[in-house]
Amino acid sequence: MPTSPQRGRFITLEGGEGAGKSTQLRRLADTLRETLRARGAELVTTREPGGSPGAEEIRALLVTGETGRWSPVTEALLHTAARRDHLERTVWPALEAGNWVLCDRFFDSTMAYQGYGLGLGRGSVETLQTAALGGFRPDLTLILDIDVETGLRRAVARHGGEDRYERMDIGFHQRLRDGFLDIARREPERCAVVDADADPDTVQARIWSAVSSRLGLPS
Amino acid sequence: MPTSPQRGRFITLEGGEGAGKSTQLRRLADTLRETLRARGAELVTTREPGGSPGAEEIRALLVTGETGRWSPVTEALLHTAARRDHLERTVWPALEAGNWVLCDRFFDSTMAYQGYGLGLGRGSVETLQTAALGGFRPDLTLILDIDVETGLRRAVARHGGEDRYERMDIGFHQRLRDGFLDIARREPERCAVVDADADPDTVQARIWSAVSSRLGLPS
Repeated sequence: MPTSPQRGRFITLEGGEGAGKSTQLRRLADTLRETLRARGAELVTTREPGGSPGAEEIRALLVTGETGRWSPVTEALLHTAARRDHLERTVWPALEAGNWVLCDRFFDSTMAYQGYGLGLGRGSVETLQTAALGGFRPDLTLILDIDVETGLRRAVARHGGEDRYERMDIGFHQRLRDGFLDIARREPERCAVVDADADPDTVQARIWSAVSSRLGLPS
Repeated sequence: MPTSPQRGRFITLEGGEGAGKSTQLRRLADTLRETLRARGAELVTTREPGGSPGAEEIRALLVTGETGRWSPVTEALLHTAARRDHLERTVWPALEAGNWVLCDRFFDSTMAYQGYGLGLGRGSVETLQTAALGGFRPDLTLILDIDVETGLRRAVARHGGEDRYERMDIGFHQRLRDGFLDIARREPERCAVVDADADPDTVQARIWSAVSSRLGLPS
């Protein structure tokens, strides 16, 4: 776990289906990269599950094969194994070198999807994360929030509802959204909820406003 | 987790390198199978890591590739993910159907190898197991115990020291042995330590004596 005072910052981006996460991730990466260049630091962009050779192999177990091949508990364990490898091999070395890391999904996704959405519960996911990661947490977590029906309409228009989670019932997606909002309520100093029900430029501006104010960057 | 009063028994076999585990597993399986037949129950033999299609895929990640590709924490998480799948798909259904299960290695191996041998510590391995498996434990765990040097001599004679763990230094193997003995001291009602420094017939008789007396089978 990085401990040096010059360590970089770790930013994670979270959100349910159709919140526009991929688009906003690219835009935020561009802005951050430019801002950091002036400070002589670099930006590493990465994703979960995956982000290191070992974690990508674990990802392949998670995203291929039939729906339901893993139970929610096993799924949470595999995500956490991939996460530990990703931290050790990619995230922690980058932060220790003074670079910043922007990550597409992190442990809040395990909490929201397995803990809230699939019913595993807060307690067991939390115990698992603490056993595996110690006290390590992102410096800032951006949660893209959108009404469930609007998000699913967007996701289906894009993917045709092919995604495994897109096919889950609306109750699942409601638990997911409520889960992310509950996480943000419990850790307001770490999490910023961004209203994603707007055009991409507006959402981008909202995200940058949260990032710059919370991490002391020029707005 | 199986809860019916007619559920079968779950027996695990543990031990360090060169303790004769494979030979004794076959012999114990034969005796148990015959004893159970008279009661109309079957014996399922299985192993960890592995024992279910998903867990065997995770096993492939653990046993292939370079030594050190996973850190001890990631390794413990992968073992635990495989274990959960193995329990859900193989062990629990068999026990629930009234059959007995004999398993080559179980969570005590994670505790001994990663917790004691590789220095992760008791606490974090225990927290992880509880988060992943709840309170589920074997009905009987047989620990084959042998002096470290004798065990390694036997293992090298058999495999030529090719095994990843066989190549570890002697301090590792001593911690492993001490770990298994410590586990047995902490849970004497579950664990039986069997002195494995004898010919196979003698060790087999010692094992059967422990199994029959502890699980109420005809000796």
